[in-house]
Amino acid sequence: MKNIQSSQFIYEKKDICLDNASLMLEETVFHTANGYLGVRACLEEGYPSDYDSIRGSYINGFYDFAEMKQAEKLCGLCEEKQTMLNVADSQGIQLLLDGEAFSMFQGTVEESRRYLDMAAGVSGRQVIWRSPAGKRAEIHIRRMASFVQLSLFTIEYSVKALNFNGNVSFLSTHLGDVKNYCNPNDPRVAGESFEHLLPVSAEFVEDVSFLVTRTSKSDLTVCTAVKNILSKKGSVSTSLEGHRAAAMLAAPIAEGETVTLVKYTVFADSIRYRGCRTAAARELKKALELPLEEHYAAQRHYLDIFWDQSSLEIEGDDELAIATRYNMYQLLQSVGKDEHSNIAAKGLSGEGYEGHYFWDTEMYMQPFFTLTNPALSKNLVAYRYSILEAARENARILGHTKGALYPWRTIMGKECSGYFPSGSAQYHINGDIAYSVVAYYLATKDLAFIAEKGAEIVFETARLWMDAGNYCHGKFHINAVTGPDEYTCIVNNNYFTNASAQYNLHWAVRFYQLLKEAGTLEAAERIGLTQEEVAQFAQAEQQMYLPYDEELGINPQDDSFLQKAMWDFEHTPKDHYPLLLYYHPLYIYRFQVCKQADTVLAHFIYEDAQDIETIRRSFAYYEKVTTHDSSLSTCIFSIVASKLGLTEKAYAYFGDSAKLDLFNLHHNTKDGIHTANMGGNYMSIVYGFGGFRLKESGIWFSPTLPSQWKGYRFKILYEGSQIQVAVSEKETIFTLVKGEPKTIHVYGEAYELASTLAIPGKAVTI
Amino acid sequence: MKNIQSSQFIYEKKDICLDNASLMLEETVFHTANGYLGVRACLEEGYPSDYDSIRGSYINGFYDFAEMKQAEKLCGLCEEKQTMLNVADSQGIQLLLDGEAFSMFQGTVEESRRYLDMAAGVSGRQVIWRSPAGKRAEIHIRRMASFVQLSLFTIEYSVKALNFNGNVSFLSTHLGDVKNYCNPNDPRVAGESFEHLLPVSAEFVEDVSFLVTRTSKSDLTVCTAVKNILSKKGSVSTSLEGHRAAAMLAAPIAEGETVTLVKYTVFADSIRYRGCRTAAARELKKALELPLEEHYAAQRHYLDIFWDQSSLEIEGDDELAIATRYNMYQLLQSVGKDEHSNIAAKGLSGEGYEGHYFWDTEMYMQPFFTLTNPALSKNLVAYRYSILEAARENARILGHTKGALYPWRTIMGKECSGYFPSGSAQYHINGDIAYSVVAYYLATKDLAFIAEKGAEIVFETARLWMDAGNYCHGKFHINAVTGPDEYTCIVNNNYFTNASAQYNLHWAVRFYQLLKEAGTLEAAERIGLTQEEVAQFAQAEQQMYLPYDEELGINPQDDSFLQKAMWDFEHTPKDHYPLLLYYHPLYIYRFQVCKQADTVLAHFIYEDAQDIETIRRSFAYYEKVTTHDSSLSTCIFSIVASKLGLTEKAYAYFGDSAKLDLFNLHHNTKDGIHTANMGGNYMSIVYGFGGFRLKESGIWFSPTLPSQWKGYRFKILYEGSQIQVAVSEKETIFTLVKGEPKTIHVYGEAYELASTLAIPGKAVTI
Repeated sequence: MKNIQSSQFIYEKKDICLDNASLMLEETVFHTANGYLGVRACLEEGYPSDYDSIRGSYINGFYDFAEMKQAEKLCGLCEEKQTMLNVADSQGIQLLLDGEAFSMFQGTVEESRRYLDMAAGVSGRQVIWRSPAGKRAEIHIRRMASFVQLSLFTIEYSVKALNFNGNVSFLSTHLGDVKNYCNPNDPRVAGESFEHLLPVSAEFVEDVSFLVTRTSKSDLTVCTAVKNILSKKGSVSTSLEGHRAAAMLAAPIAEGETVTLVKYTVFADSIRYRGCRTAAARELKKALELPLEEHYAAQRHYLDIFWDQSSLEIEGDDELAIATRYNMYQLLQSVGKDEHSNIAAKGLSGEGYEGHYFWDTEMYMQPFFTLTNPALSKNLVAYRYSILEAARENARILGHTKGALYPWRTIMGKECSGYFPSGSAQYHINGDIAYSVVAYYLATKDLAFIAEKGAEIVFETARLWMDAGNYCHGKFHINAVTGPDEYTCIVNNNYFTNASAQYNLHWAVRFYQLLKEAGTLEAAERIGLTQEEVAQFAQAEQQMYLPYDEELGINPQDDSFLQKAMWDFEHTPKDHYPLLLYYHPLYIYRFQVCKQADTVLAHFIYEDAQDIETIRRSFAYYEKVTTHDSSLSTCIFSIVASKLGLTEKAYAYFGDSAKLDLFNLHHNTKDGIHTANMGGNYMSIVYGFGGFRLKESGIWFSPTLPSQWKGYRFKILYEGSQIQVAVSEKETIFTLVKGEPKTIHVYGEAYELASTLAIPGKAVTI
Repeated sequence: MKNIQSSQFIYEKKDICLDNASLMLEETVFHTANGYLGVRACLEEGYPSDYDSIRGSYINGFYDFAEMKQAEKLCGLCEEKQTMLNVADSQGIQLLLDGEAFSMFQGTVEESRRYLDMAAGVSGRQVIWRSPAGKRAEIHIRRMASFVQLSLFTIEYSVKALNFNGNVSFLSTHLGDVKNYCNPNDPRVAGESFEHLLPVSAEFVEDVSFLVTRTSKSDLTVCTAVKNILSKKGSVSTSLEGHRAAAMLAAPIAEGETVTLVKYTVFADSIRYRGCRTAAARELKKALELPLEEHYAAQRHYLDIFWDQSSLEIEGDDELAIATRYNMYQLLQSVGKDEHSNIAAKGLSGEGYEGHYFWDTEMYMQPFFTLTNPALSKNLVAYRYSILEAARENARILGHTKGALYPWRTIMGKECSGYFPSGSAQYHINGDIAYSVVAYYLATKDLAFIAEKGAEIVFETARLWMDAGNYCHGKFHINAVTGPDEYTCIVNNNYFTNASAQYNLHWAVRFYQLLKEAGTLEAAERIGLTQEEVAQFAQAEQQMYLPYDEELGINPQDDSFLQKAMWDFEHTPKDHYPLLLYYHPLYIYRFQVCKQADTVLAHFIYEDAQDIETIRRSFAYYEKVTTHDSSLSTCIFSIVASKLGLTEKAYAYFGDSAKLDLFNLHHNTKDGIHTANMGGNYMSIVYGFGGFRLKESGIWFSPTLPSQWKGYRFKILYEGSQIQVAVSEKETIFTLVKGEPKTIHVYGEAYELASTLAIPGKAVTI
């Protein structure tokens, strides 16, 4: 167990637990992904036959259609969903020492360790094993999904003979006849697995296996190609049986000698490549042109830049520091690197939520990229632009004659919500996407991209609000929608939704003006947007109805929220959370009880809509009725608590959320990581404790330091300038790391940041 | 075509149309049922192979469970429904004339006619047919589902040789391997048919075939037994192949001679009978003890009484008179005759709505029985009592810790709603059932039955309201429920629901008092109902919040109805009705648009809750926004228009609804009759034009005469006294036909009715 340099960038688990639950959890935790492909960290050699495993390899945005029957057919309800596919299994490597098969479950595991090296971009397993016959070997397996060549996944499998001379052989498999995970005993996942992939061709070209499959309904194809290279001369034989290819590589090994197998897999799908069989051959050829060490070096270089841009250090809590870094790394592993994909709710780490993209991206994850890696944020907007036509069609399905309505959950643009009251009815996703376009613009001032793609999204979503809302007593109302809180569905004038629509309309008007001034109004012309419509946007924005309760001095979540009975928290058994698993939705709808931040989220995102005292009262009110049954909630409460100067409370809400997946706090990490929570965790620090805001008026900071920490540092990119913010007890030091000087606002005051600026810490009183 | 005496009780169609659509329609229109069993009027000999047919025989309340997958699993959603089964096919009779098979589609149909004789209680087909070889025969087929022996269904099949001597033979089949109807090309009915019935035994005992089958999931069994008797000596042979039995009966026939086959089928199911095989043998034996003519006579006698009790005559519109009679007859055919069954939405005439019972019974059909045949009304209450325990369980599923919540649609008591927002959320069904119990009590003063069963229903439904509602600013609110109008779901303080709950609570208190006075409080004791709870009922009743809009002077349908945008009727294409087939429900929810009477229904049922001017304004308001996309709507508008003195408008709403099924006005009568519409049609006359009301203060009349009619007459039973009401232009004559004298109220004045009373007609001004 040497050679691996322990550092702040390594998350490791020693003494691998061999119970099934731990192994399935670690399949997620140590998965390898690059935003294009993702491979779960299953053991190469497999598990005992009575073990369960989600043995999946995924391509972001690669899907098939699947039937989704409605119990009662109503007009426009989705009856077909998209589902992310397990595309192939190239994880299989069976190591044999003189014919004895390596297994963690046989012989003796003397030492073992799994790790994720986030500076190197590899995950690994190290084992010292003694076979039943007494042969001792040191095994080290490293996996990489290359960030530089996105099609490439490698397994480097090294074996050192510790006490014997003999033969080592590797049976390396490549299987195309895979299915998605199912478990008839778990009602939460699919009970039976549909055959989504049909074989097209399987062949060996020399010792390279090529498997091509086609989806059953979506008419997509994918090719995977596998090449195995042994570090020393030996024998190679191959076999092909249906869509199952195997290569056997063998060589002699001497005591003290290390023999290594490198297994290259490339993935090529028909969404990105014309002729994916040819593309796979080309990508494999490209991969093989460099030795593995150079791929490792390129990976490390990519991550050097990533960590430099997104640096976030916490002093005083090492475990939290590593967890925060883990989260950022997972966001990078999950984010789509092209306009064909986005960030799935579970990234590329598992099949939970079927690889669907939600509002989670725009409201919880994209801010991280917008502030640290705007090119990836731009891709996310480009993806939304790529499905704008589908969003228009979705709006028609929902009855609207104009505008676009983004689907609540989707892969390729069509809605996949099974239960529309807490799915398609969440119209705020339109505002969320518009908000993310604006944020990208505010961080970059990239008006060219707004002209090309961003503005059209903002215009079409604004149009939808005009069609969905209506004037009532002079105010613009939006009825029959669902806000973020899914414990109250189909309501009138959800505060968050209306605030979100107001912002969307505001920026539709603003982009129209900016583009007009720049003489690039093609987006408006393309969709026939008239000056008159823009004037209607402005009017609706001004007259937007934002419910306010005079008596309580707060913003009601919606028109009727406050007249409902209070949920009886006192008599709710502790094991009846999350409520949605124990109470009929209709029962929940009847009470003042929130699954997650809703009005409180509005108080963060659209903070200028209300004065601070209203926000303070609202926060106190909703705090009492929110269960945080969603992982998207506490981070927002943390941010708003920070805003209100309630730093200790903010820290309490921040809590262990950073460690959700590492410690499996929600007991479902086996199904995949919680990407939105990871983004929310980042926001709790930067937007919460750091008090960062991105506005048309510039960038704003209002740093606070939790008493549990000694300090923290983060970097953001703003209009091309990189700014580091280092918060300590006595002061915050702002440093212009690169780029032009910028005006920054700290605790409400404007400063010109040309090199370094130290602002004394401010004790915020409540 | 002689022998059948044409009268006001015969509905007939001459020249049978042989297109598929007409035949399927007539399968419904001429079906034969008695409330226990129902057989669709398929042609005995079948149709050509490319024809579709719903060849069904049903037992009221006999069901299997069927999977009903939810697209998204949420806590408490139904994933299993009940479905009424097609239990056997004993309709098959193939007539052969010297080996030539009779078919309407071969040879020449010289004359033909189908009819329903509602005085005799038989439906029939008469055909004069010439075979391809030139043999002419007169065929007369009569079917009866006996009202006297409910297990018995008969087919009398007569053949008269008009121009030949030869042999006549009948191949009579009895099939147990039947399925429910499916049509892969029609999205509105099942696309594939599940095998719900599994064979248990099949045998011939002498020439009687017995088929026993068992349901796949609900563990019910049914036995059908068939016996064929030929009117003259001949040969008989039988065959049995799996669950398909056949008997071939043959005899010589001479020119001018009539040979008749009588086919007896008895149905016996395990819900009603212990050992249904034995029961079937016993029932068949009983049936055979009487000659067919005596069964006919008993049937006629039963109907004599029925028509005498429910007499409703209209002068001046013969077509309407026969349609109205047809509707009453269908109600009798459909109503369950025991506590194991109720009235399905399509009666026993087809598989639409899967044989489920809805609120339609209590609010649209039961009033007819309450006023004319209280014993049947009592059965309907007894059925609801039999599923009270299931309603308690349903309340628990919906989150309530006390009380009972009746399922929105069911056969055996468990909820079958696939989409709960317009299913289970219709809590008013509790109030509707309570209302029907009260109505039964008011019409009969049968306090013993209230003590035994009725009160417990009213108490438990009242308890549910206490758990579902909450006080808000001193008023009792009921949130998150759906009213009768399914175009607005999950709303707060639906006016109808709150009024309904108020009435329910009122009568819970009242029954408690009445039973206490009578010293029969066992029902309260059984369920632990305390004096304190009853006091809470009284308080909630008094403080019930009934929304009222000061500005418009009307009752809003719910808290937020009036703030929504108006539906754009002007730009809605005529072929986009019913809206539910053309617009996503969420879109519809956003507008002021009603599928059916909702607040207007409350203005009829709970008319004393508002003054007449409020009702007038409400009626005018809702008239403009109601599409009447439900067949339960226009009859209610007709009744309230009558109440408001708008007789011409009332007549316009009454319109053709009486003829809905006879003329297939909704284009779906093939799937079954619209029983609720039939009941509504009765109510439009008696409650509408007749202005009848049944209250604790007595019975009230306020007759008006549509100018299209010369007069109308109806009879009601009130506290055992039969009263006839004969309305003509100049006066209304009330006659005490039998029983004790009664106080009646006419146009608001009280009169003692001891024999006959003539009240001058009252011109109501608007």
